[in-house]
Parts: sequence; C-alpha cells; structure tokens
Amino acid sequence: MRADLVLVGFGNVGRRFVRLLDEQRDSLADTFDLECRIVGIATAKHGAIFSPDGLFATNPAAPTAPVDALPALYPGAESVEGSLEVIERLGRSDSPTRVVVETTTLNIVDARPALDHVEAAFEAGCHVITANKGPVAFAYDGLRRKAEQAGLAFLFEGAVMDGVPVFNLVRETMPGVRVTGFRGVINSTTNHILTALEDGEAFEPALARMQAEGIAEADPSLDVDGWDAAAKAAALANVLLGAHVTPHEVDRTGIGPASAALARRARTRGNRLRLVASGRVGGRPVVRPEELPGDDLLARLRGMANALILQTDLLGEVGICQLTGGLTLTAYALFSDLITIRRRCPGQRAAPLRRIP
Amino acid sequence: MRADLVLVGFGNVGRRFVRLLDEQRDSLADTFDLECRIVGIATAKHGAIFSPDGLFATNPAAPTAPVDALPALYPGAESVEGSLEVIERLGRSDSPTRVVVETTTLNIVDARPALDHVEAAFEAGCHVITANKGPVAFAYDGLRRKAEQAGLAFLFEGAVMDGVPVFNLVRETMPGVRVTGFRGVINSTTNHILTALEDGEAFEPALARMQAEGIAEADPSLDVDGWDAAAKAAALANVLLGAHVTPHEVDRTGIGPASAALARRARTRGNRLRLVASGRVGGRPVVRPEELPGDDLLARLRGMANALILQTDLLGEVGICQLTGGLTLTAYALFSDLITIRRRCPGQRAAPLRRIP
Repeated sequence: MRADLVLVGFGNVGRRFVRLLDEQRDSLADTFDLECRIVGIATAKHGAIFSPDGLFATNPAAPTAPVDALPALYPGAESVEGSLEVIERLGRSDSPTRVVVETTTLNIVDARPALDHVEAAFEAGCHVITANKGPVAFAYDGLRRKAEQAGLAFLFEGAVMDGVPVFNLVRETMPGVRVTGFRGVINSTTNHILTALEDGEAFEPALARMQAEGIAEADPSLDVDGWDAAAKAAALANVLLGAHVTPHEVDRTGIGPASAALARRARTRGNRLRLVASGRVGGRPVVRPEELPGDDLLARLRGMANALILQTDLLGEVGICQLTGGLTLTAYALFSDLITIRRRCPGQRAAPLRRIP
Repeated sequence: MRADLVLVGFGNVGRRFVRLLDEQRDSLADTFDLECRIVGIATAKHGAIFSPDGLFATNPAAPTAPVDALPALYPGAESVEGSLEVIERLGRSDSPTRVVVETTTLNIVDARPALDHVEAAFEAGCHVITANKGPVAFAYDGLRRKAEQAGLAFLFEGAVMDGVPVFNLVRETMPGVRVTGFRGVINSTTNHILTALEDGEAFEPALARMQAEGIAEADPSLDVDGWDAAAKAAALANVLLGAHVTPHEVDRTGIGPASAALARRARTRGNRLRLVASGRVGGRPVVRPEELPGDDLLARLRGMANALILQTDLLGEVGICQLTGGLTLTAYALFSDLITIRRRCPGQRAAPLRRIP
C-alpha cells in the first residue's frame, strides 16, 4: 500500500520523523506492506511546498539540511500559499491513502492553528496523525465524530508520553476493559525541577540550569504553571474517560519558588513532591503538586521519567512508564500512528501479523 | 462470528474465565461480533465431557457449582475419555472457530501435559489460548511454527503478568520496535515475602503467613526457589528476544532464610532486595535476588505488585506495571487472547475498531 504524507510543521519532531521513515523503510515495506512518500511540507516561517511526485525525489539530501526557505531546498516542487493549501492539495491528489502529519507546537489558548489543520484535513479526506496535544485536549469528541463520519483516522499517540503507548495500550491491548480514572507524572520539565529541588537546589537556579541544558523552554510557563500537564490530563480525560473538557477546565496548580521547601521537607519524611495529573469518570481533572509516600510508583520517578497509572474495572491498576526521553520517541509516536492507519485501512490487503521478535 | 471453546483444566482460573465470558456476553457480541460457546471440559480428577450443542445449555448453573463429577453436573453431555479426546472431539466438530483454553498448572519438569494439549490442539486444527507458562517457556519456537503452518493462533498473554499486557504490548503497540533486553519483578509470592523480610519479619514465619493467607502454595518451592520467575524469564526471552531456552537453562537463584538479613540491610542503606528476572539478546536469562537502589522502578514494588522494564531500540526503557492481583486478571488474559483471535480471523467480517471509551 502507498501512503502520501504532508508535513504540517517541520521542526525537530517533523524532521526526526522523516529520518525515522527513512531508517525504517525496509521494515515498513516488508513487515507492513507500506510505502510512504512525502509530497508536501508547510512551515510557519520558511514557506510551503507541494510536489505530487514526492519531495525527496527532487532533493534527497533535503530532510537533513537546515530548514531554510523550502522552495530553494526543493527546486522541483511547487511553492504554495501555506498549510491549508498544502492540505487541500493533498486532498485533491489521487493518492490512495492521504495522511496529514501535524507537528506544530501547542497553543494553550485555543489549540489553533493545529485545530484548523485537523479540521481541514478531514474536510479534504485526509487521515490525521499528530504529536500536538492541542486538538485532542480541546476538541476530541467533535474531531472523533468528524473523522468517523468521513471514515478517516484521527491519531495522537504522542500527545501524552511521546511514543510510549497510552492510547494504543488501552485500545489495542485492553479490549473490554473500562478505564475509570488515572493518575500520572506526565511533565518532564517540572519533574526535572522537582528532582533538583529535593536534592537541595533552589527553584530559580534549577530552572535556569534546565533552560541552559535545553530541558526547559526560554518561556517555561507552559511547563511550570502546569499547562502542559493540564493539556495532557484533558486529552486523557476526553479520550479514556469520555469527558468533554479543555485544559482551561482542569483544576490546575503549577510549581514555583515555594516548591523548594516543600520538596525538601517531603524528602526528609521519606516522601516525594511530584506534579500529579489525575482524573476520574465524571470528575474534573486535576494537576497539582502532591506529597506522595516513598513507595508510590509515581514518587520515585526522577528527571525525565514519566508514568501513568490507569484505574480499570477488570485489571485493577495498570502502570505504564516512560524511562527514557528524546526526539526519537516523539517521532516514533507518529510512526506508530502511521502503522495504525495501515492496519485499519479498508479495502487493502490486511497488514500481516507482526511476528515477535 | 461464533467460536466453540473447550476448557482443558477447570480450576479457579478456568471457572473465573467462564464467569467473565458470561459477564461480558453483551460486550463480546456488540463490540467484537463474537459469540462463544463452551462445548467441552476436561479435568484431571473429575472426568471430561463434551456436548456439541454447548454445555451450559444442559445445566446453566454448572459453572458456579463446586467442581465435582462433571458428567453428573451436565447430564445432557457425553462423558469422554480425557483431555486429548475432548480436544479431538472439538477438532472433528463443524464449528467455524475452535479454541482450546488451556489452564492446567505448571509442570516445571517438562511442561507436560500442557505441552501435549497444545500440540494436540494444533493437530486437531484448533487455536490455543493458555494461562499456563509451560508451553511458551519450554517450546515456544516449535509451537509457534506449528501454529503458523496450520494458520492457527498460539496465545499466552497471561503467562507473565496475568492480564496486564506484555506480549500484546510489544506486538500491538510497538510495531517496528526491537526489544533488546528486559528486567522485572515478576513473581508475587517472593515479592510478598521480601517485603515482609524488609519490614523485619523472619523468613519461615513470613512464608507460613503467606501460606495461611493463600498467597504461597503448600509446596512453595516453585516460587521461593525461583522456578516460577525462571519460567516467566524463559517465556520472555523466547518470545521477545528470539532465544531458545527452557526454565532449566535460566541462571536461577531463589530466596531463603538468609534473605532476611540481606533484605533488612538493603533497606537500612535506602535500597531494596528484590527477586529480579532479566535477559538480553544473545545472553542467558538470570533470576536472582538483587539489591536495587531505592529509586529503581523495581525497588519500590511491594507485595503483589509486579513490573517489567523492556529495553528497546526506538523507545529506550519502557515499564509496564501490574499493581493489583487476583483471579479476574488471569481470566482476563484468556479473554484478551480470545479477542486477539477474533481480530485475526481471516474470512470473517473484520472486528470493528474499538472506540475509546
């Protein structure tokens, strides 16, 4: 099966995804009978291009070159207006399987323009895979319905724990199980800072060090004020618990200079201060620092480690942990979404069962 | 789709599975288009029966009644010779989908008779789902080949962490990912005992208490000598790492009276003594007590909690944790294997995608 992809957003994640597709080309063909071509790229600052024959036919070195003016990098490609036109062009193509790969950054105000991209993709008859948590955190139910009506996929495995399976875990491996709640440590930056605080560092120097090391953003408010965790909590509540919330409806408390004394005191007592996101069926999701007993699975996660505990009817509490970070994991989330599309595709030879190993 | 099942072994797990099927009857029909009938039961001590029209049509109360002489419980059913004949009878039936549900107990010498049951099932053209870790720990590769050649399923999700997904996690949610190693705490009885030892109890009283509470077996050697963990390690190595080992080739050290001082000393140092099972590609699996740093994900698992960390190429280290125990989880493992068969079944209407929630 052939799939044509357009990349909306072409930053670090999008570029790592392109390299991963290339690294896994043989595995995709042999194991999954899938051949992917990238036919369009849209960026906010470097233009947008489209080529129905595949962009990397026009400049095979381009995916690893620095992002500069895209039309100059791909001389055979057509320069187009912007992201929405790239999506429309994909929709008008005669490709059998059309996928919009959305990797713009989270806008915590209203999830735009990512939300516009997803809606435009469904209108154009394209599947959507995204690493942006905005659309699922702000508008899951409406988007799911639109996708379902159009027979299209809306997939976002990377929204909560990069490529470590959360939504696929429930959907693919827990058939018949009802998730009734969750609690997790799902923001790495604040966990890095809290780990430093309990080791004795003060808040501002710890934050500055994280920024210098590239762990925290120049504007760290999305992380330290709990917005990133709130978006993830909203996504989890919407998808797993049937909620209809946005990140603005999450009961949200971040961390700050006052967290240092609390983190040290917790440690003195054998406990740990962690930024915990939680939710339960029928309740409002919550993000707040909590002092956890030392034996709590979430208490001992240090640095970039994340974990999510799902409360279920048939399996009790099940935990899934991401112990490693990095761009490859986020890119892999998109890759696994692509395989999900392949597995679901109607009217195609069924994807062969994956043999282990 | 209709599936006819025979139960080989009808102890606590098999009986809980029957009740679970009944509890989930509507979900099976509506979500998975699957209708299951139990047409045969074989026990070691209470006889074996077969009825092509479904056993519970003959005595609907039977699955919850105490197991006694089976022929008396199901007066309309035919009494047959034993487990192998029940399997042959299923194979000769005209049911479109035939499944042998194997729940006999582990024989650590050579995995028989479970292994015989699995082989007989494939020869009779029946799928196999099993909660017995013996066949996969002793003979995975040969059984996998036989199943593949016959177009049948050989599934054993419950072999390592009851119904918490381990094999489905890798197969269904990590396409393209290579597992290079694992380490885990995967035996609940020894973990219960080690938790008691670090809390100050001595070995013999702790073991006696576990036996009184039904956590440890009357003959506890399978657990305390590390055999159960070794069987699970062999299963993991065979399936995930491409090894060809039996539990007898695992480098195995159990726990005993001397573990008490070690567990207390570890705790004094902020560490924890745990029975760790581990393996890596090309290496011999190992089961032994290890003193783990307090921040190790495995260190803080108390009582029945289990966890497995998978080392992978694309996702780094991924942990999956079972925080709750109980018969329902083991029964659910068989249930999820049944859904896997449904999803794979060729020539049938594809199972509908599960919507979350």
